[in-house]
Amino acid sequence: MKRIKIKQLLVTEPKGQQVTVQGWVRTFRNNQFIAINDGSTIQNIQAVVDFNNTEESLLKRITTGACISVTGELIPSPAKGQTVEIKAAQVEILGDSDPEKFPLQPKMHSLELLREIAHLRSRTNTFSAVMRIRHAMAYAIHKFFNDRGFYYIHTPIITGSDAEGAGAMFRVTTLDANNPPKGEDGKVDFKEDFFGRETNLTVSGQLEGETYALALGEIYTFGPTFRAENSNTTRHLAEFWMIEPEMAFYDINDNMQLAQEFLQYLVRYALKHCAEDLEFLNKRAQEEEQSKPQDQRSELSLLDRLKFVSENDFQRLSYTEAIEILKNSTPNKKKKFQYLIDQWGVDLQSEHERFLVEKHFKKPVILYNYPAEIKAFYMRQNEDGKTVAAMDVLFPGIGEIIGGSQREERYERLLKRVQELNLPEKELWWYMDLRRFGSAPHSGFGLGFERLILFVTGMTNIRDVIPYPRFPGNAEF
Amino acid sequence: MKRIKIKQLLVTEPKGQQVTVQGWVRTFRNNQFIAINDGSTIQNIQAVVDFNNTEESLLKRITTGACISVTGELIPSPAKGQTVEIKAAQVEILGDSDPEKFPLQPKMHSLELLREIAHLRSRTNTFSAVMRIRHAMAYAIHKFFNDRGFYYIHTPIITGSDAEGAGAMFRVTTLDANNPPKGEDGKVDFKEDFFGRETNLTVSGQLEGETYALALGEIYTFGPTFRAENSNTTRHLAEFWMIEPEMAFYDINDNMQLAQEFLQYLVRYALKHCAEDLEFLNKRAQEEEQSKPQDQRSELSLLDRLKFVSENDFQRLSYTEAIEILKNSTPNKKKKFQYLIDQWGVDLQSEHERFLVEKHFKKPVILYNYPAEIKAFYMRQNEDGKTVAAMDVLFPGIGEIIGGSQREERYERLLKRVQELNLPEKELWWYMDLRRFGSAPHSGFGLGFERLILFVTGMTNIRDVIPYPRFPGNAEF
Repeated sequence: MKRIKIKQLLVTEPKGQQVTVQGWVRTFRNNQFIAINDGSTIQNIQAVVDFNNTEESLLKRITTGACISVTGELIPSPAKGQTVEIKAAQVEILGDSDPEKFPLQPKMHSLELLREIAHLRSRTNTFSAVMRIRHAMAYAIHKFFNDRGFYYIHTPIITGSDAEGAGAMFRVTTLDANNPPKGEDGKVDFKEDFFGRETNLTVSGQLEGETYALALGEIYTFGPTFRAENSNTTRHLAEFWMIEPEMAFYDINDNMQLAQEFLQYLVRYALKHCAEDLEFLNKRAQEEEQSKPQDQRSELSLLDRLKFVSENDFQRLSYTEAIEILKNSTPNKKKKFQYLIDQWGVDLQSEHERFLVEKHFKKPVILYNYPAEIKAFYMRQNEDGKTVAAMDVLFPGIGEIIGGSQREERYERLLKRVQELNLPEKELWWYMDLRRFGSAPHSGFGLGFERLILFVTGMTNIRDVIPYPRFPGNAEF
Repeated sequence: MKRIKIKQLLVTEPKGQQVTVQGWVRTFRNNQFIAINDGSTIQNIQAVVDFNNTEESLLKRITTGACISVTGELIPSPAKGQTVEIKAAQVEILGDSDPEKFPLQPKMHSLELLREIAHLRSRTNTFSAVMRIRHAMAYAIHKFFNDRGFYYIHTPIITGSDAEGAGAMFRVTTLDANNPPKGEDGKVDFKEDFFGRETNLTVSGQLEGETYALALGEIYTFGPTFRAENSNTTRHLAEFWMIEPEMAFYDINDNMQLAQEFLQYLVRYALKHCAEDLEFLNKRAQEEEQSKPQDQRSELSLLDRLKFVSENDFQRLSYTEAIEILKNSTPNKKKKFQYLIDQWGVDLQSEHERFLVEKHFKKPVILYNYPAEIKAFYMRQNEDGKTVAAMDVLFPGIGEIIGGSQREERYERLLKRVQELNLPEKELWWYMDLRRFGSAPHSGFGLGFERLILFVTGMTNIRDVIPYPRFPGNAEF
């Protein structure tokens, strides 16, 4: 008999019809009540065993973690909190789970412990909820862009170009580590390497993305990116996924508008399609908050934060205006900021971004027109001679979630900047070509996918929102 | 005035309304007729310039490759093959294109040449069509799985595990190539490397995918995979994208059924959503065919092949049955096969697969139950003691497009096979754990994304269906 997913069974009218469910035992109480989960929903279904007429040897194998198949009648449930249950006529053990050895017992486990058994943590409520939401967000991203006529472009992962300078890189090689070919200068000869040159893992698909925007109009990337930085924090991964839309004929204002519509679409999608998982994570986060000292608790719950984003227009203001507000703010005057704001030109820290969002405007904020000196070479130079058409979207709790800009489309201006910064002009020949042949005003931005998932799930460690996190010292699984 | 995409303009009723279009000049004839393309469709829109009232200096800048903005009235077109055109009131040059230097002239360019300027080839009809179809197929894949309750899982790209043995790997490292740390044995000490061990780029996400199937039920991966093989062919890339669904509670028959439904869905999606691009590519392939000697031309056109897949049930037969058919086939008896089939146990070549599909059954074929010796360690062992529950889906023109299997879910059986093949049992601890705790029958398969795009677009070189191909000696852009 074909299995029915629990998600579907739970909304099926119980008429005593025969059904089969397959999944993993979460608990087995009183030799009678099996709570089964199959991953299709955070809810379990209860199967009731007639223990008087069931072999003792079978009952003993219904243990937490075992995989079973249950066939029986779907009936209304007398128990609280569930509308249906299965009166089990047949229970089959598909895979045993030795309760002495199975590491997931029906109790709370620390997230640290679960990271050590990342191949099993997806069988817990927390991680299955996070991963279902992660899926929903990935799908919503594709749907948002597809519906607007954007094309998904796979930019290369292995790259010979080191132009963007977004961070330290991983080298990709097939040379014999112990005995690499050497040139006349005694150094490793990368001409002998697989690609005939030194290659690295990409830090961003933006530059290649631009080549497609200036052909197909509106495109986006969604792929893995890498940073070889020795950051052991709750906010950094060595391998993470990034979404980078790039649009011809968009100026900085169009770019800000798209960023707002995009983020609001995603949050609304989550609220609509992941309601049960979000409710569970909301409770989970609230319990975690309550274990903190009162003054460190956040004012907004997870669901509050999601509504904060979906229901408010984003406040747009220039970097210069933001600096004025911050300079005159109470925490700055009372020296509560760790980094005091004393002059135009400094980079903003998360504490400043959060002050603007959470205290001053009480809505998401988009800052634009940043000092050129703290931004990347490809950003469009404003007429004031000191700022560029950059933009950052700031969210409650986490600060910057999106960074982007209008790109410098003028050949001479870009060339000058490349030279000022001593970037490898020769390697950028194809990027410069875009400004030589049919250049157009264009813009784009980047969204770190795991940052988004942190925000939407309320999880606090980025290692807990990706299936198998990569960080210094860890490439297990 | 906000631009309207050409795709939309071409289906707008012309009433003399003011519209703005922005895009790249494909041709400019008689100082009057501009063919503009903006990447939203393979069709150009014609803008008609009143050259008597336009500055000569402006007219000179309307060159092939230039990016322009045209505003004017949308009117019915008297010209053949187009229903509307724009009576240009205002033409603005957004980006010039020096006709002496722009490498794309309005004529056919060889695919080889275009590979050298991959940053511009997306502005040609062929590559924009291919890339729009590539996008449509990626989206259709996500939609197919999402609609069925599968979850998209990002399996790791950098991996410490070398268990699958699917091919040569790229090493990922941050050690100083010229001066790596050495251990007491004089060899490079990978404990000092970024991840505290030797790491490589993934060749498959399957094993990690299984961990999620046995928690969430039905999952799929869609990510880049890598092979460090020195293959300079039209069918291999060093970096390519792969889709790997993995499903708990599926046996080999469920797996075959899913593979058929999946491929038919994708082809039908392309026929429905990419009709214009497919028509263009169909013509293109026909012209290419006509330059070949008669006996090397394929019987089916591109559109024929797509219908061949979408309209026929896939023929399922066992490897053993296929060997019998091949052994007794005319090309085998007349020694027309390059590799003659003389005994059970040999691996099939593309010529055999294509014979079964194109000549014998005249429909797509799924072969199953292959000899264990020619398949991977994780495939489920059949009771005959010599075959495994593997399956390959074979398509016209290209042979194998999908490979998959039911996975060995029995701990003892799998362990024995791992030991027989001298695989690193210790590294596979987490994979073995899946069989120790709540194991379940499960299945999955892999689809090479670029193979799919080759099939759907009729292109013949895999380097032409990915934005920036990676192959030995090439990591440009």
